[in-house]
Amino acid sequence: MQVNSHAFRGHDASTGEEIAPDFPVSTAADVEQACTAAKQAFADYRATSSEERAAFLEAIGDEIMALGDDLLDRASKESGLPLARITGERGRTVNQLRLFAQVVRSDRWRGVRIDPAMPDRTPLPRADLRLRMVPLGPVAVFGASNFPLAFSTAGGDTASALAAGCPVVVKGHPAHPGTDAMVADAIRKAAQACGMPSGVFGHLQGPGNELGSALVRNPNIAAVGFTGSRSGGLAMLKIAQERTVPIPVFAEMSSVNPVILMEQALASRGKELGEAFVGSLTMGAGQFCTNPGLVLAVEGEGLSAFESAACAAMADQPAQTMLTSGIREAYAHGKEALAAKPSVEKLATGKAGDGSTCEAPELFAVSGSAVLADSSLLHEVFGAASLIVRCADIEELKAILRGLEGQLTATLQMDDGDRETAGDLLAILEQVCGRILANGWPTGVEVSHAMVHGGPYPATSDGRTTSVGTMAIERFLRPVCYQDIPAELLPAELRDNAKVPKLLDGEPA
Amino acid sequence: MQVNSHAFRGHDASTGEEIAPDFPVSTAADVEQACTAAKQAFADYRATSSEERAAFLEAIGDEIMALGDDLLDRASKESGLPLARITGERGRTVNQLRLFAQVVRSDRWRGVRIDPAMPDRTPLPRADLRLRMVPLGPVAVFGASNFPLAFSTAGGDTASALAAGCPVVVKGHPAHPGTDAMVADAIRKAAQACGMPSGVFGHLQGPGNELGSALVRNPNIAAVGFTGSRSGGLAMLKIAQERTVPIPVFAEMSSVNPVILMEQALASRGKELGEAFVGSLTMGAGQFCTNPGLVLAVEGEGLSAFESAACAAMADQPAQTMLTSGIREAYAHGKEALAAKPSVEKLATGKAGDGSTCEAPELFAVSGSAVLADSSLLHEVFGAASLIVRCADIEELKAILRGLEGQLTATLQMDDGDRETAGDLLAILEQVCGRILANGWPTGVEVSHAMVHGGPYPATSDGRTTSVGTMAIERFLRPVCYQDIPAELLPAELRDNAKVPKLLDGEPA
Repeated sequence: MQVNSHAFRGHDASTGEEIAPDFPVSTAADVEQACTAAKQAFADYRATSSEERAAFLEAIGDEIMALGDDLLDRASKESGLPLARITGERGRTVNQLRLFAQVVRSDRWRGVRIDPAMPDRTPLPRADLRLRMVPLGPVAVFGASNFPLAFSTAGGDTASALAAGCPVVVKGHPAHPGTDAMVADAIRKAAQACGMPSGVFGHLQGPGNELGSALVRNPNIAAVGFTGSRSGGLAMLKIAQERTVPIPVFAEMSSVNPVILMEQALASRGKELGEAFVGSLTMGAGQFCTNPGLVLAVEGEGLSAFESAACAAMADQPAQTMLTSGIREAYAHGKEALAAKPSVEKLATGKAGDGSTCEAPELFAVSGSAVLADSSLLHEVFGAASLIVRCADIEELKAILRGLEGQLTATLQMDDGDRETAGDLLAILEQVCGRILANGWPTGVEVSHAMVHGGPYPATSDGRTTSVGTMAIERFLRPVCYQDIPAELLPAELRDNAKVPKLLDGEPA
Repeated sequence: MQVNSHAFRGHDASTGEEIAPDFPVSTAADVEQACTAAKQAFADYRATSSEERAAFLEAIGDEIMALGDDLLDRASKESGLPLARITGERGRTVNQLRLFAQVVRSDRWRGVRIDPAMPDRTPLPRADLRLRMVPLGPVAVFGASNFPLAFSTAGGDTASALAAGCPVVVKGHPAHPGTDAMVADAIRKAAQACGMPSGVFGHLQGPGNELGSALVRNPNIAAVGFTGSRSGGLAMLKIAQERTVPIPVFAEMSSVNPVILMEQALASRGKELGEAFVGSLTMGAGQFCTNPGLVLAVEGEGLSAFESAACAAMADQPAQTMLTSGIREAYAHGKEALAAKPSVEKLATGKAGDGSTCEAPELFAVSGSAVLADSSLLHEVFGAASLIVRCADIEELKAILRGLEGQLTATLQMDDGDRETAGDLLAILEQVCGRILANGWPTGVEVSHAMVHGGPYPATSDGRTTSVGTMAIERFLRPVCYQDIPAELLPAELRDNAKVPKLLDGEPA
């Protein structure tokens, strides 16, 4: 909440009460100052060696750890997320920074390609051509509400942009200003200790949309990383496209993450699936980008067993503290809107909350034909609500999958006997989403080399990338070719003797 | 020219006369049919093996060669480009298809990454994660006027999209419908001979903008490749962004390709540089994306020698046939507008044309301070016109470089004594363009692994890519992660025994 036009405070998510201290609301002048400093820092920062940059990333991780329990307490209080979850998230955040340090040291991100000169080629000689990837420039990063550490000030966007050689200006999420301020201090300490230019990291805070808009409009910003709502992501995308020089926006926005319960799996373990599903649905009060908000199955005994088990499990689920009052209200409205649809049946509700900061999980059901007639049933309700779609047959289920908007994930619950049909569904799902799982749950996103946390629009604004995993570094790089440049002037990694992974005439060397 | 609303004809560029036969103007129904067929073909085409797809690309090359002199004659007539140039362009086009066949066979484009399961990891086990790149879907390709073969129906965009596994719908450039029709036939023959689904290639023809707009709006189109004017590229980009599902547009649009003449180079070989410059400027009537439309140097004797030699060489230059009457008119207007600027001095003009299909090359000069005061002086004039910017000192030259719009190329003419300053300029130019050359000329774009034909906006709509060279295939791919998918259901390249280049836990394997 804004204390006055110059300051605001965080809240204890579980009580709704303000927490000291005040944080200054960043001004237009602050945006300008941070972006100008980032641009000034760019020349020096992009010239740092892989080792220097990797050490900086590791130092950020160390400084975050050095914040100790104070950080965990503050993040838990501001987010309403349990201390254990926040502790795990801190580990993920620090490991992510360390993983990107490894990536930087590998030099594979430099994408070196060398096509040596062919002076004697006929009819025309070939010039000496050397390609490397270079960083785009200062990156604006928007912190997310639901991961106060892993997708916020020192989260995946920041780690991958810094790894690429781009200075970062973070706009913290106003739901957790205290957490952000502590992490920002840690980054600044690490930058100073590592001798990085001071503008390599900037931090802006404040409620409202104008701050973020000004950041994306700033001509010194070269790219945007965003995790949040569809409306927020699309607003930033529009601003970025309307600039004199448009810039790329990597916005991870919304997804209902369909879970398909296949016939044999339902027959053999409908009850267990129902229980496990509720566990995934209600984890973190359902406030995950990969929360399973949609379940699809062909009607029958197996689905009935699944539903019965899920309903029973739901009855025991406590209402959980949600991240912010705004998210809680949107979730409550989303549930009401779904319940108000004549085609929708409310199957189960968890325990009621106190009506102020908590909200109960809910489970709905609808027929496949109703979904085919009204795709608005498939819009994301951010929180622990899910819709079971009872399909008349597998063809109806396939038709619904084919008509889905882009998704982050899709999950198949399948047994051996389901394989043939699963193969058909895979071919559809590959075109719909960025990650396909078998016999797991979409919540839980590994930070590794093969992860894709992305997907076709509107899951993200650019389905050709990922925002989690080491491939995320590629978002902030572009290729430059050096033709016949004298060896002494070539960047170090493009010289003949450079020990970096490369393609020599198209072959690894 | 449009014969009637249903048909149009090509023209002999050197006489302006129509050439038979009539070509049907594609209709909205044709767009719909081609895009629907492309979508239908996508499932089968993306499932083809690397070998099948590579053989298809090679067969297209063979069929183009089999068209023999008929193709060369028609292309030369429709473009006004000499037979030798068209013959060379055919070689480039066919070699480009063959190079992408090699790329497909290498399987590196599949970008396979495998992070094996760690069932015993604590606190949480790791799932089995496998990533591959998949094609985006049907790609709309716009043929260019200035390369009737290499950037048209079977040009780089088509070759890289087909290589990626994307069906292609080409909108041919109305300046060379006969050439396009012949090449389209060659592609269809190759598709049939190789057993490809018929919708893998569609071809639309006709004048006006509506056809292209309808193509980009079509919901079955997943990406766009475009080479042409800035206004045309931006119009397609806008349409693509306003779709219900926005799609990426890779538009290569405009560039003045600055050439920087450095002090020592000018002192030692100002005259030779002036002569060679005019050769590059007037090649192909200056109708190259990489034409050197801007020359920057510090005033002095060296620059005077360069100018004198360039002016002398210009006087001998014949007026050349331009690609279309529209391009000729725009070029004439661009020259007039530049000449009308009070700050601009007209230095030299080539021999006058006949006023109908030919136009003379022209050379202008302006002061660095005038350019700093009026950036409109730096707008592209497509054709053999160039502007020499006489800078007061190297700092003024640097200031102009820093303020440049994004460019495809930048060239340094330098000698050993220029190295230190050249290093400073390189650091600036890396942020401005996609390719930096030393002691060459930007015209002439090698099709190889290390080439970048791209650059920051507005040289292209997306500076993170290239439209020439093997890296161009990456434009049409996106990553999908398979988590714990049973081995039998995995795509072949993701299975343990697959012989494809991969990263195993982040390391090449």
